Amino acid sequence: MILKSTFVVGGAASGKSAYAESLVLNSGKPRVYLASMQAHDTEMQDKIAAHREMRGAGWRTVECPLDAVAALAEISHDEIVLFDCATMWLSNHLLAGSDLGAESRGLLAALDACRGQVVVVSNEVGMGIVPENALARRFRNEQGRLNQRLAAQSDCVVTVIAGLPLALKGALP
Amino acid sequence: MILKSTFVVGGAASGKSAYAESLVLNSGKPRVYLASMQAHDTEMQDKIAAHREMRGAGWRTVECPLDAVAALAEISHDEIVLFDCATMWLSNHLLAGSDLGAESRGLLAALDACRGQVVVVSNEVGMGIVPENALARRFRNEQGRLNQRLAAQSDCVVTVIAGLPLALKGALP
Amino acid sequence: MILKSTFVVGGAASGKSAYAESLVLNSGKPRVYLASMQAHDTEMQDKIAAHREMRGAGWRTVECPLDAVAALAEISHDEIVLFDCATMWLSNHLLAGSDLGAESRGLLAALDACRGQVVVVSNEVGMGIVPENALARRFRNEQGRLNQRLAAQSDCVVTVIAGLPLALKGALP
Repeated sequence: MILKSTFVVGGAASGKSAYAESLVLNSGKPRVYLASMQAHDTEMQDKIAAHREMRGAGWRTVECPLDAVAALAEISHDEIVLFDCATMWLSNHLLAGSDLGAESRGLLAALDACRGQVVVVSNEVGMGIVPENALARRFRNEQGRLNQRLAAQSDCVVTVIAGLPLALKGALP
Repeated sequence: MILKSTFVVGGAASGKSAYAESLVLNSGKPRVYLASMQAHDTEMQDKIAAHREMRGAGWRTVECPLDAVAALAEISHDEIVLFDCATMWLSNHLLAGSDLGAESRGLLAALDACRGQVVVVSNEVGMGIVPENALARRFRNEQGRLNQRLAAQSDCVVTVIAGLPLALKGALP
Repeated sequence: MILKSTFVVGGAASGKSAYAESLVLNSGKPRVYLASMQAHDTEMQDKIAAHREMRGAGWRTVECPLDAVAALAEISHDEIVLFDCATMWLSNHLLAGSDLGAESRGLLAALDACRGQVVVVSNEVGMGIVPENALARRFRNEQGRLNQRLAAQSDCVVTVIAGLPLALKGALP
């Protein structure tokens, strides 16, 4: 069984996306992929291609580098949606000069109101040395706060370390 | 029940301070806040103000950017003290040119000898890429060692991820 | 009891090496230390000396900054080997211009084929802010993938935080 909302948080290349995809596939429901990553350069293009190959066919993909709210409003009650990931989405908004607090509140409300099941992936970014760059410090604070709120409103929260899931809230789906 | 000593470790903006404050509030004891952060600039001033607003009234606050030992010696047996945080304290000593090994040993002894209950907050800083800056490398090694020792001498150790506590030693308070 | 293969992952200065060494010592078997670190400068020399002092005498040490495969092939069935660590080994290969994918596959196969028991230590490096340096980004992706594969093929996986072990797969040895 998959709960209404699952939040998957982990480091870079921790296997969090693969784990989240397995949850969605196991649900057996029509699946929607909300893609936040933009192909600005070849490194990003390669990453997007690798993610697409990993998750395979059978997904309806909606590009939402900024407007995840509109995409979430279109999800129907029989669908399951994978939002991958909140970190790239937040980073896009930071670079776009958005009001991050307002955007985060909007995302949380849209996830809460979503008619389908939701699995949200996000990065843990706060366990290194304090960045020298002020924008990076601001980003890690905003990301940390968003992760706390995503976790607070999710039925199940899982952290993934070296590909292995560890339940932080609720039982492993 | 709160044990004699609890150590709370987590990333930046992980919710570790809010969790630690909830432990202290739930104890029902007179509470003392040992504040290690200094307002060097507006970013720090904002952070201090946000922390102060979060924890609310009813705390006796002692500023101890460097001398936590003296502050801990003044805690009475009926009080509970929140030391927030060991990372800023260690960073202040690094910048002051202190002998970090000696200062860390002094802090550990003072915590052990404290007559009241203690909750110590600290940052995990070693899960990113090796910093290019030699001082940052030294700091993360010293911080890691200090965290190990704080954990070793605490009755209860909790890590906080996305606002959610996970017990590493003892049961969640 | 120590299982055939244990993978220990944690941040810098988290106590992961000390924990891994305790597993090896508790096995009571002849122990082999596969050392991947090279003494390029005094910082590294100091670190190597500290590690050597910590683990004490009674180890057969094999230097393998690059060729861990050959070293693993020489382990006998009654021995237990500590490979410390996969991160330094991967970093050495990155700097040597090796094909990291091929080297990683070779290492995984050699660990799987090793006649003795194996304990592998590695760093979590993906929980900080995205590095600005492209090589660092590549390294953290390769390290994350290698950690996932090491975890997948190990009987037991443990993360160490502030010196405290947390089982991610299997029971704590």
